[in-house]
This record gives sequence, structure tokens and C-alpha cells, in this order.
Amino acid sequence: MTREFESIFDGRKILITGGLGFLGSNLAHRLVKMGSEVILVDSLVPEYGGNLFNIAGIEDRVKVNISDVRDEHSMKSLVQNQDYLFNLAGQTSHMDSMQDPLTDLEINAKSQLFILEACRHFNPDIKVVFASTRQIYGKPHYLPVDEKHPLQPVDINGVNKLAGEWYHLLYHQVYDLQTSVLRLTNTIGPRMRVKDARQTFLGLWVRLLVEGKTFEVWDGHQLRDFTSQEDAVDAFLMAAASADAKGRVFNLGGDRVISLQDLADLLVEVNGEGDYKVRQFPADRKRIDIGDYYADFSLARSVLGWEPKVALQDSLKSIVDYYREHLQQYV
Amino acid sequence: MTREFESIFDGRKILITGGLGFLGSNLAHRLVKMGSEVILVDSLVPEYGGNLFNIAGIEDRVKVNISDVRDEHSMKSLVQNQDYLFNLAGQTSHMDSMQDPLTDLEINAKSQLFILEACRHFNPDIKVVFASTRQIYGKPHYLPVDEKHPLQPVDINGVNKLAGEWYHLLYHQVYDLQTSVLRLTNTIGPRMRVKDARQTFLGLWVRLLVEGKTFEVWDGHQLRDFTSQEDAVDAFLMAAASADAKGRVFNLGGDRVISLQDLADLLVEVNGEGDYKVRQFPADRKRIDIGDYYADFSLARSVLGWEPKVALQDSLKSIVDYYREHLQQYV
Repeated sequence: MTREFESIFDGRKILITGGLGFLGSNLAHRLVKMGSEVILVDSLVPEYGGNLFNIAGIEDRVKVNISDVRDEHSMKSLVQNQDYLFNLAGQTSHMDSMQDPLTDLEINAKSQLFILEACRHFNPDIKVVFASTRQIYGKPHYLPVDEKHPLQPVDINGVNKLAGEWYHLLYHQVYDLQTSVLRLTNTIGPRMRVKDARQTFLGLWVRLLVEGKTFEVWDGHQLRDFTSQEDAVDAFLMAAASADAKGRVFNLGGDRVISLQDLADLLVEVNGEGDYKVRQFPADRKRIDIGDYYADFSLARSVLGWEPKVALQDSLKSIVDYYREHLQQYV
Repeated sequence: MTREFESIFDGRKILITGGLGFLGSNLAHRLVKMGSEVILVDSLVPEYGGNLFNIAGIEDRVKVNISDVRDEHSMKSLVQNQDYLFNLAGQTSHMDSMQDPLTDLEINAKSQLFILEACRHFNPDIKVVFASTRQIYGKPHYLPVDEKHPLQPVDINGVNKLAGEWYHLLYHQVYDLQTSVLRLTNTIGPRMRVKDARQTFLGLWVRLLVEGKTFEVWDGHQLRDFTSQEDAVDAFLMAAASADAKGRVFNLGGDRVISLQDLADLLVEVNGEGDYKVRQFPADRKRIDIGDYYADFSLARSVLGWEPKVALQDSLKSIVDYYREHLQQYV
């Protein structure tokens, strides 16, 4: 069932940074089905999302290039002759960004300049979609958060992602590079990192649940929205395909708003069993918490025709099923 | 004529990054008079503002430490045992930031993390005032621009200064480091760079005027405000002295708003003679121009008790007098 926007990727050359990670690999699975020639760039740094198992089943139909976006020279070569760049490589852990702010800066800000300079000089016609984050809004002043909300990041990761996002927008404004930005909220699905909470707390919940252990819900009252990987992949493809998306920023969101405790209940229900305990935030995490967040994604709906289609419950089901079968590949 | 806030600097230990530059050296002259022990850190990179002549007359009463804020290790040593840090080192050229975005990032973003990490680990009680810039607002949506104006930088310099500023605010929010931020507009006075327009276009105007050459006014209709070095130095001292300034951002501004062509007329009038020609913006400069800008500095007035005291005309007079006498030290 190929939708209209998908046909344009048939036979096109696609580069994905963070290509062995959660979203990058799900995007690769979809693009391979649509007939794209896909190159996946990934550093396979153990603390990040890259995992060779994520391309099980398509390993012979993609090219894997192990390199780090911090490697300026490899990026210069890799962007050449590509039609699209899905720029997803990033350091995603808020806590790691506080403990090692320089590494976060190198990946989330400096490397983005390498990539954009490479595109500008060696492939100015490439279309780029960048994965940004709701983290750059900081603590919401109002809900739902739209794209005009003030940008007031509360951690180093938010500051550096903000810089990375602005570089993309600037290279459009100043050099006419065809860039678009998606601000992701919690994105979940098969192939996400579950070893720990570095990519999303839900990953760790799922791991412990599948292992039959008690998982921890911090506070539990915070409201959040969740995008399924299928819907997130749709958004990246739609932004890449849309002439109206150039130089613009779009929030993604979810089909519903839910408290973390209700989410925990839903996850246990979907799994059929499981235990969790509610505890207070650890002090170092509390200092950078953003409270309630959920996105207004009406701009993406009106400009891209995007909206979430996968119900949260179905998304959780597919996750539990996946990790019941494949957990050993992820821990 | 020492004002009340100045007495607190008597005998205190002060570190100034960019200490041989325009504002850093003017601050040093004032602090030495007030009895401070001053260390000036400067890289003396030829394209930036540092100039040993800027401390003529106080060279035996300050310590000069030639090093670069990009040198993580020197910063670790230098911040120790200091009471105040005036953090002024920066790459200021908008055009240079577009031609060499990585150097701009290294100085204006990455080095700020070095400095803040050094303070956090080795001198958590230090008081820090950071020199930010109106450039982070981008093209104003309304005038005068207050601190709540959206942050939408139009060049790489603006993005990186924004990151540098946010790191300072975060280290207050998360680690209780005593940081304050001043967003400077055009700041002018003796000891500014006049070799070229890298620090301010007015520098180049003054150089050419004093050399008896015709200077260029681009467009001429843009409105701007100007802060004298005396007023800017006041603001840094007042922010450092104020318990209410911690974790906050303040715009500086000028005593009047003036078009660039009127400024050129005023400069020629103050000088007694001179010629300029009006021309169109060069294309690469036009793409990153911000249009009209002037600041609302009422927050600095109400919280710090600061306001500009030096009339623009008097500021221009002191500049012309200074460079008539000392131009050879600056070209």
C-alpha cells in the first residue's frame, strides 16, 4: 500500500545519518521497500542507538558506512551524489549532555556544521530533513506547544540541538539549501534502544517488563505525547517530498495525551502482566525536567498532510511483541 | 568620583577574557583605578580585538596572560581563586562567521563550555558576567526590542552566541553558578578595533576619516543605537555587583536612535571635516542584515539602575580625538 508521496523515492539515492539507529533503520526499511538506494552512516558508538540487528532482513539491500558525523572528511565524501539526506544522528541523552557537555556539542552542533558545509559545497541540490527535538522548548509556557512557543532549553542537549536546528534553517535562508526540520516528541517503536533510558525512558520500561522485572515510573503525573515510528517515518518522507516544507520547522505529536502513570498501566495491560513502582525524581534529573509537554502538530497537518495514524495502544503492542522476540539483540 | 557599586571591586581578584580587546581593556582601566587585581586573558589573534597598546598606562598594574579560550587547560587554571569573571572573549565578525563557521563555533560556543565547566568544578563561587549580543534576536519583529523578543539569529555568529549565552543561563539554573548576561548593541569608544569592520563598521569609518579618506555608508537608512564604552563598562560592573542580576539577561542600549546616514553626518561634524559615500549593501552582507534595530533597556534600568549617560556626540568626539592621536597603534 504505497501512498502518493512515497513513489518519488523509487530509485533515488538516500543518505541517512544515524542510519543504524532507531528511526534511521525504520526509515531504511521503508525506503528499501520503495526502491531507494540507501546508504546508512552510523558510528555504532555503544552508548547511542546504532545496532546492526536493526537492518536484519535488508542488510543486503542497503550500504552501511561506519563513520562518525564528527569526522568532517567522511561527511564530505558521503553527501556527494545523494538526492536526499535524512539527518538523524544525534546524542539524545539529557543526562549525558550534562555530564559531558562537550561531546554533546561536538555531535549535536559542530557536526551539523560539517554536514551542512559539505552539502553546500559538494551537493547544493540535496534535500535535507533534520531531526530536532521538543527539548528546545524547555518547560512549556502553554499547552499544546506550537512552533511559535519560545525556545528556552533547560539542558545542554536542548541548547546544542537548538544550534543544530538553526544551522539548518540558516543554510536555507542564506544559501538556499533545501532543509526542513522536524521537532520530535517521544518517539517509540521496534528498534528503539532499550538497554537503558538514553534514548527514551520507555525503552528501559520495556526491557524490564520483558525481563519480568519491576520498572520505575518517576513522579507519574507528567503529561506526554508519543509518536510511533511508522508515523515519524511518514513525517520524514512527507517533509522530504514537500516543496512547501523547505526552510520550515514542524512539530510532530501523538494521537493522544497521557500521563506517565497511565502509560505504565497501558503498557502492563498490553503486555498482559508486569509491575512498576512510582518514585520521586532523582535530584539531578529533576533539575532539567520540563514538566508536562504535548505538541500542537496542526502545522504539519496543514502543510505536509501529516497526522499520527497509529494508536498508542497498537504502538505499545508492536513494541512488546518485538522485544519479546528480539530482546537479546538489544541488551 | 567613585560610585557606590564601584567600591566593592577594591582589592578583589578579577579575570577578564578578551582582556586586551576593546571592552576588556576599558574595563581593566576602570578596575585598576578601583583597586582591583586584574588578570587579562587574550589570544592576540590578529583578526580579533586584542591589542597590547590598549593597556598603555596600566601595563604594570595588570597581569597579562596570553592564551586562547579554546585552550581548555589554561582556562581551568585561570578561573581559580578569582572573585569575578568578565567573559568578553568572542569572535565578533558576522561575515567571518559565515566564511568560517567552525572557528566561530569553537570560540563562541565550545569555549564557553570550557569556561563554565572550569568555573563549576574549580571555582563555583565566582561571579560571571557574559557579553552577549543583540545579533541573537535576528531581524526585529517590533521596536524597541526587549528581552522577550523571539530569538531568531540570521547568521552563524548569532546562533553560536545564542548557544554561549544559554550555557551561561543553564549553569545558573542547574548548578547555581552566579552568571549574568548582557546583550550588547553597537558599542563604541577608544580602544575599539578600527583596522577593519570586524568589530564594528564604525571602526572602519573612523580609521578612514582620520586618514583623510572617503568612508562608505551601506544603505544608510537603517536605524541603530550605540552604547559608549563608559556606559558598557558601567553595565558590566553593575551586573557583577548586583545580587538581583544572577541568572538574568539584560539589553544594553543607547541615549538615542539614529540612522546610519545621520550617524555619518554627525561623525563628520564632530571631526570638523570628512567625506563619505552611500552605496548599496554587498549581496553577501545583505543576506544576513537585520534591518532596523534598537533596544529597550528598561529592564537594566529597573534592576541594575543602569542607563546610558554619555551622549552619542560626546562619544564620537572622544573616539575621533583618540584615533587622531593613536591611529598608528591600531592599523
